[in-house]
Amino acid sequence: MQALRTVQLGEADLVAAGKAMLELMRELYPLCRSITGAGVRDTLTAVSRVAPLAITEVPTGTEVFDWVVPQEWTISDAYLEHESGQRFAEFQASNLHVVGYSVPTDLRMPLEQLSDRIHTLPQHPDWIPFRTSYYQEDWGFCMSACERLAMPSGEYRAVIRSRLAAGSLTLGEFVHRGRSEDEVLVFAHTCHPSLCNDNLSGIVVAAHLASFLRRLDTWFTYRFVFAPATIGSISWMALNEARLSRVRHGLVLAMLGDAGPLHYHRSRTGAASIDRAAAVVLKASYPDAASIDFSPWGFDERQFNSPGIRLPVGRLNRALTGEYPQEHTSADSLELMSEAALAESWRACLRIFEVLEGDRRYLNLSPKGEPQLGRRGLYRATGGYYDGVPSRQMGLLWILNQSDGETSLLDIAERSGIEFGLLAQCARDLEVAGLLAALDDRAA
Amino acid sequence: MQALRTVQLGEADLVAAGKAMLELMRELYPLCRSITGAGVRDTLTAVSRVAPLAITEVPTGTEVFDWVVPQEWTISDAYLEHESGQRFAEFQASNLHVVGYSVPTDLRMPLEQLSDRIHTLPQHPDWIPFRTSYYQEDWGFCMSACERLAMPSGEYRAVIRSRLAAGSLTLGEFVHRGRSEDEVLVFAHTCHPSLCNDNLSGIVVAAHLASFLRRLDTWFTYRFVFAPATIGSISWMALNEARLSRVRHGLVLAMLGDAGPLHYHRSRTGAASIDRAAAVVLKASYPDAASIDFSPWGFDERQFNSPGIRLPVGRLNRALTGEYPQEHTSADSLELMSEAALAESWRACLRIFEVLEGDRRYLNLSPKGEPQLGRRGLYRATGGYYDGVPSRQMGLLWILNQSDGETSLLDIAERSGIEFGLLAQCARDLEVAGLLAALDDRAA
Amino acid sequence: MQALRTVQLGEADLVAAGKAMLELMRELYPLCRSITGAGVRDTLTAVSRVAPLAITEVPTGTEVFDWVVPQEWTISDAYLEHESGQRFAEFQASNLHVVGYSVPTDLRMPLEQLSDRIHTLPQHPDWIPFRTSYYQEDWGFCMSACERLAMPSGEYRAVIRSRLAAGSLTLGEFVHRGRSEDEVLVFAHTCHPSLCNDNLSGIVVAAHLASFLRRLDTWFTYRFVFAPATIGSISWMALNEARLSRVRHGLVLAMLGDAGPLHYHRSRTGAASIDRAAAVVLKASYPDAASIDFSPWGFDERQFNSPGIRLPVGRLNRALTGEYPQEHTSADSLELMSEAALAESWRACLRIFEVLEGDRRYLNLSPKGEPQLGRRGLYRATGGYYDGVPSRQMGLLWILNQSDGETSLLDIAERSGIEFGLLAQCARDLEVAGLLAALDDRAA
Repeated sequence: MQALRTVQLGEADLVAAGKAMLELMRELYPLCRSITGAGVRDTLTAVSRVAPLAITEVPTGTEVFDWVVPQEWTISDAYLEHESGQRFAEFQASNLHVVGYSVPTDLRMPLEQLSDRIHTLPQHPDWIPFRTSYYQEDWGFCMSACERLAMPSGEYRAVIRSRLAAGSLTLGEFVHRGRSEDEVLVFAHTCHPSLCNDNLSGIVVAAHLASFLRRLDTWFTYRFVFAPATIGSISWMALNEARLSRVRHGLVLAMLGDAGPLHYHRSRTGAASIDRAAAVVLKASYPDAASIDFSPWGFDERQFNSPGIRLPVGRLNRALTGEYPQEHTSADSLELMSEAALAESWRACLRIFEVLEGDRRYLNLSPKGEPQLGRRGLYRATGGYYDGVPSRQMGLLWILNQSDGETSLLDIAERSGIEFGLLAQCARDLEVAGLLAALDDRAA
Repeated sequence: MQALRTVQLGEADLVAAGKAMLELMRELYPLCRSITGAGVRDTLTAVSRVAPLAITEVPTGTEVFDWVVPQEWTISDAYLEHESGQRFAEFQASNLHVVGYSVPTDLRMPLEQLSDRIHTLPQHPDWIPFRTSYYQEDWGFCMSACERLAMPSGEYRAVIRSRLAAGSLTLGEFVHRGRSEDEVLVFAHTCHPSLCNDNLSGIVVAAHLASFLRRLDTWFTYRFVFAPATIGSISWMALNEARLSRVRHGLVLAMLGDAGPLHYHRSRTGAASIDRAAAVVLKASYPDAASIDFSPWGFDERQFNSPGIRLPVGRLNRALTGEYPQEHTSADSLELMSEAALAESWRACLRIFEVLEGDRRYLNLSPKGEPQLGRRGLYRATGGYYDGVPSRQMGLLWILNQSDGETSLLDIAERSGIEFGLLAQCARDLEVAGLLAALDDRAA
Repeated sequence: MQALRTVQLGEADLVAAGKAMLELMRELYPLCRSITGAGVRDTLTAVSRVAPLAITEVPTGTEVFDWVVPQEWTISDAYLEHESGQRFAEFQASNLHVVGYSVPTDLRMPLEQLSDRIHTLPQHPDWIPFRTSYYQEDWGFCMSACERLAMPSGEYRAVIRSRLAAGSLTLGEFVHRGRSEDEVLVFAHTCHPSLCNDNLSGIVVAAHLASFLRRLDTWFTYRFVFAPATIGSISWMALNEARLSRVRHGLVLAMLGDAGPLHYHRSRTGAASIDRAAAVVLKASYPDAASIDFSPWGFDERQFNSPGIRLPVGRLNRALTGEYPQEHTSADSLELMSEAALAESWRACLRIFEVLEGDRRYLNLSPKGEPQLGRRGLYRATGGYYDGVPSRQMGLLWILNQSDGETSLLDIAERSGIEFGLLAQCARDLEVAGLLAALDDRAA
């Protein structure tokens, strides 16, 4: 098996990955996911075709840290029916039409009374908002402002054919074993219904990262966790608390299919290796990308970064929460997604993993002055040129100058600005030339 | 008694404080203050009606560190009288007309010879400059350039009815006892005659801070010192050297009544708690304010920050020394002052004190993942909204995320940008909910 | 002997230094320098008239760290002769016409075949490029693109009357003994033929620094090394390895005669005293100058900064490598040079040395509050002025405030922005006044 070398990914690999991810997303789009229930299970079954998942069912009532796993929610139908027989907010038309975790309901009331139960988005009259009430018994409907305006006055019957009952919360895991027991954790939340960017995009990118890494010889063990937001990551941590210390780096994946630039959200300290790895990748390969400080108003990285857990987990996104209007609305649909964006997000993750894999300390074995690269074929023969020094030449010189046994390749990438994959190749060339020795035992 | 909560200050409190401060300033304005003498004593007597001061008289000749307390200066009259009988630069019209600490004089001389003794400000022909000669025996007059031009040639009699004799230098102190013996030092210099911003403004703000804190239950003991610049702060330090180590934070107050933005001058290290407290207050509440690096060409904070004393004392101003033309001239008058500016300066000081009082380390008692805020009424029930997260919600999340026992509320305020008073309220709410424990015994 | 005080350098000193440096450069310009050989020896002989050099000959074949001293190169003539007898690329016209270290050659070939051996600069058709092949046996010619175009087709004879034979590499050293055995190393590379900025400028500035320092009483010992680039600095280090630890600061000099602003290249850590000294000098005296991060694609400082050597050596330049088109071409000629630029470069070096000499820690002997400067004649008598504080007054106050025994004069220069020479004078004045004591024994 070979090692992870993103430089070897060609255009065809990207096209194939993008196509496969969008295809999987199309299949998953109609399912009604929530924090528990059949929608999540069906999603994980589909993902298992790409990367076989181990499934864990966490029973209702299980205490997970400060939380308790809630009842399982099952829904078959929901609608508002006017006395004329005309129906509105039909669940069969969109699973966003019903407030998530709505209790079973079959009530008659006039429109005025019903109005408090109906959520709309007046600023985007054609869009249906996404609303939930997981931890407080409630029910309600979401609909477009246009549809709401079309509702005639009179009596309505509000029907929600749901069930809240003891069941379980479903987690899926895929593990790619590396040579080390140290782990890289990749997390994608699974709890949103027909919403693409948030978070079918994270799910399909994670699935195809897993599928790609399977074929490779890696240093780290890569653990992919698919679980509902908040209660899911908390459940997973509670069930696996004893082995959390194996997680050396972590990445939450979400909102990776839109056309915007990449955004990396730093871990709590902002100084973790994953933060630095993401920064050098974004700087070298994605000039319009940005790193953003940790915020406790984040996704599941806020659970991993809580003070009693303290795992160095960051998050990779394209669109930013609170800054793209389609978020948590029916407009977060397949039209917002592109194969190219998904594929580039996937490659960015691989590039970050490549930094984690290759971040080693080396020792310059000829540390007094520069070694004579020329007689080793590592330096151009005719001197005197000054019109641009090749990056590879700079990479060799930076590594030799910095490799005092304390400085790692990631340190050198940060200081030199040279793309990490190229730098890692320079280090391997210097090792072959007998000028450099790695100070760990990661070599394949 | 209640604690300091600036959020409870209403518009009426500010109006009342501003009015009271300007009223006191009007009363103090005519007094001829210098580094010693009756003007200072009368000033401290008036301040005592607001906050009763303990008075210390330091006798002439007392050695205070490298200095010696000078003779006391008394002045009753001064003028220049032309042979025609016309008088100029009359002390009775403005106490700025005579150079501070001028020796007794009664001499006749022609105008040409007198000219070297007369200070004017040609660039502001209507203004009288303020000049002193404390530590070298001398005499002189200050006058507007206009008045100087109006002086006819001929013989003049220069009369200064002053006295320099053994006496004392006068210090005033007010102490508000808190629960701790650790002190916050507030210093205002008292040595300038009829000049408002520098430093009647500092005197009246300090007096009304003292008067306000008296009614409150505070952690720190607040010590207010009113003393002449340089020799006054040096005398106070020399007399109190053994107890200086109780001073944990300090603030010099001056130039707080003009219309300009607030400026905080950092202490010598720039990293003291008072520096950080001032910075979060200015950032959260005064967008046009700025913090400025320490300079040894400062006010009395340069004495407190000398290398053999090293107290963490900063300075709060509006106008900047050397950058407002009225400084040390007759134009630094009541017209330059506003009740609103004084009141806002006063509130800014209270906000800084509030940070010092509330800067505590807490421990998250449910540190594994986020605690379930919803069932404790600390989280809105319906999920899915992304259009703006309330500051209070963010405050709760930041405190929970950061409270690992090492991070203080001031650290969290710096990182989150959330106004400190709100953050402190969030911490109290979390304490009530059993999710947070303070790691000190400051609680009232 | 007196100490180094650059404030005492007058305009006449600068004019004289500039004139002397350009004169020496004119004498050295025609010599054909390479990494070995007669050109270098003749250069060092000429420099010895300014500052007598100790010469070391390192025999061909000597192992110096990872390198081996190459054969010595001697060249007497070279040209391309057309079958018509017309000659091109004549060595006698310019020593740039032959590729450095070309092997002896006497071959006939048609122009087409010869073309691969001819280097030109099409973007600057009148300039001859400078090319070398030190470590791979080769030969070739360099010529202007215009001359190349004028070459008729047909048969050519390529003649290079050179010799590569056992000999030696020549190093020159001048040492000015200071009171301490700690050394400041100044290095100028000597290996370029008729090129002025790179590096006759470095050679003549170094020579005249040596000549100037000879007359002074210095703390540090100043060691000037003249040697070819790369192999020369490596040879010098290998021969002197046991005493390298005496080098406390170092400066590589090159490209100092052009009209551009000064550029200082930091040492490997970027935090060495030489880096900080250069930064305060450039900031205080050369507003258009800049400091630049270390790069392993540097001049000989990259050898001194290699991980097995780690000497804190920076580099001072005007023009930047890769950013001035004349570099390594015949256009790097005497016309590019100016006496004024050379003189100012020379003064900048002296200012940097002045910082190194004067960077001492002092102790304020009157550290409680400010000492009374007035009675010591160190403060103006009449108070109240605020229109500008003299730099000298600020210097006195900064030194007193900061001199806690841990803060050095360089620290204070960085923080205050005050020119170092003035600050050092303030410190001496405070010492005389009994207010300050130096914490070392550097005093003359």
